Amino acid sequence: MHSAVASPYLVPFDGSFRVATAPTTPPDDAPGKKALKQAQEESTEALRDLQRRLYAGDRHAVLCVFQALDAAGKDSTIRAVMSGVNPAGCNVTSFKRPSEEELDHDFLWRSTRALPRRGMIGIFNRSYYEEVLVVRVHPSILAHQRVTVPDDMAELWRWRLDAIADHEEHLARQGTVVLKFFLHVSRREQCERLIARIDRPEKNWKFEEGDLEERKHWDAYLHAYEEALNHTSRPWAPWYCIPADDKPFMRQQVADILVRTMRRVDPQYPQVDEDRRRVLQSLRGILQDELDGKE
Amino acid sequence: MHSAVASPYLVPFDGSFRVATAPTTPPDDAPGKKALKQAQEESTEALRDLQRRLYAGDRHAVLCVFQALDAAGKDSTIRAVMSGVNPAGCNVTSFKRPSEEELDHDFLWRSTRALPRRGMIGIFNRSYYEEVLVVRVHPSILAHQRVTVPDDMAELWRWRLDAIADHEEHLARQGTVVLKFFLHVSRREQCERLIARIDRPEKNWKFEEGDLEERKHWDAYLHAYEEALNHTSRPWAPWYCIPADDKPFMRQQVADILVRTMRRVDPQYPQVDEDRRRVLQSLRGILQDELDGKE
Repeated sequence: MHSAVASPYLVPFDGSFRVATAPTTPPDDAPGKKALKQAQEESTEALRDLQRRLYAGDRHAVLCVFQALDAAGKDSTIRAVMSGVNPAGCNVTSFKRPSEEELDHDFLWRSTRALPRRGMIGIFNRSYYEEVLVVRVHPSILAHQRVTVPDDMAELWRWRLDAIADHEEHLARQGTVVLKFFLHVSRREQCERLIARIDRPEKNWKFEEGDLEERKHWDAYLHAYEEALNHTSRPWAPWYCIPADDKPFMRQQVADILVRTMRRVDPQYPQVDEDRRRVLQSLRGILQDELDGKE
Repeated sequence: MHSAVASPYLVPFDGSFRVATAPTTPPDDAPGKKALKQAQEESTEALRDLQRRLYAGDRHAVLCVFQALDAAGKDSTIRAVMSGVNPAGCNVTSFKRPSEEELDHDFLWRSTRALPRRGMIGIFNRSYYEEVLVVRVHPSILAHQRVTVPDDMAELWRWRLDAIADHEEHLARQGTVVLKFFLHVSRREQCERLIARIDRPEKNWKFEEGDLEERKHWDAYLHAYEEALNHTSRPWAPWYCIPADDKPFMRQQVADILVRTMRRVDPQYPQVDEDRRRVLQSLRGILQDELDGKE
């Protein structure tokens, strides 16, 4: 199975991750804006080639999960990292409020239907993790889900986290490379970005009252994230907690981790064996004769 | 309803299209390679902006259908035109051999499930048109489809073409902009490209014996295309028959037609009314107070 690439933002596998001490800003020695932009362009170029080989090789799929509090930059990071890649090899699925049909299935059902097939990069903008994040912060949502709730609520979240970890291990065993990004924004930076959504008319449509409401549950969200990341960061399905207060830095980190992960997978164009080569050469003769007017 | 943008390659709506006289090469006064590349980069830039507005506006969908004989350049044109656009706003679906489940439905079912939702650009790499193209050239395929075949076979194709035209009119009425491209390659150019697939090892996996077999049915295919294009080119669902022997020219033509079409649709960011603006301003106050430490 695939193993995680190194990064200062890799969430360790031993449950020792603490969101309170995880940085939301780049380190002091981070590259400047110009260097970041160039690094990201190089990543895009590399990704374009890796995606082609992934598609041709048809042996692995790549699943990138993006989770974050509001305005951390999920949409713009996905756009920045994935624009430039052939959209024929890349599917982005945004998970919003589930439909009645989806609620009548287990909580992994709807995202399972959207999983990337072999050869494809699949991006989840939010995911099944919402079931242990927003639902944990607002347990009243469970009433709509018509699920059996155990006496000890803590058990419910453990069940769900176990189910998620098992699901991801299954995917990894079947050849899907699972990568998860938590875009970690500070409360102050989120505040400024929400104000910007009001100040810029073309961003008004993105503003939702709910975002303000959710800020009141900041600590509960961070607690839920910490539990989720600790419970499910695994060598074959690593979490990366990326500082999100600086967008160019965040984008470049995500692009770099994705590129290094795919390089490790190292997808290859299918090999043609000797027999097949002979067949191709004889077919080539037929085509060449036609070109030469011998037909 | 949307109306077609002008182009020398627009298939007229009066049934007068003749594939035998439709060019496969650019006109003599076509721009040079460098100018084409620049024009295409400008189109990508424009498309990026139009796609954002399409997504935010959430009123229209765009459906681009690509059809062609083998090696005309469907894949590479889709890649060239759509790379650069946010993949979160663009879905590409390639239609290959239908599954048993798909065969147990009417012939529009499987592509209907893949239609772009509002706000999205959907690309069909092949489409329901195969049902009046490959199936028409190889009517033996009908046996797998378990459909009722009328005594007069011509009637079957007319039914299907009518069904397609009605389907597209329905989509157009519901706000989907339908655009169809036939990438028209010459027999000789196809021959050279198939040889290139043999000569370049990393392209070997794309070579299929079937492609050679299909060349024997060249005229039958062109006849089927001519009938299909004449029967279904409409102001709200136009066909463009694009010369495909020169790839940079072809790509730029497709990009240009797509951009001009979307400009005509002119998607807009949602407007915010006075009441909403007042609400936003009061919410802004709450956020600003927090930033100023007044909370």
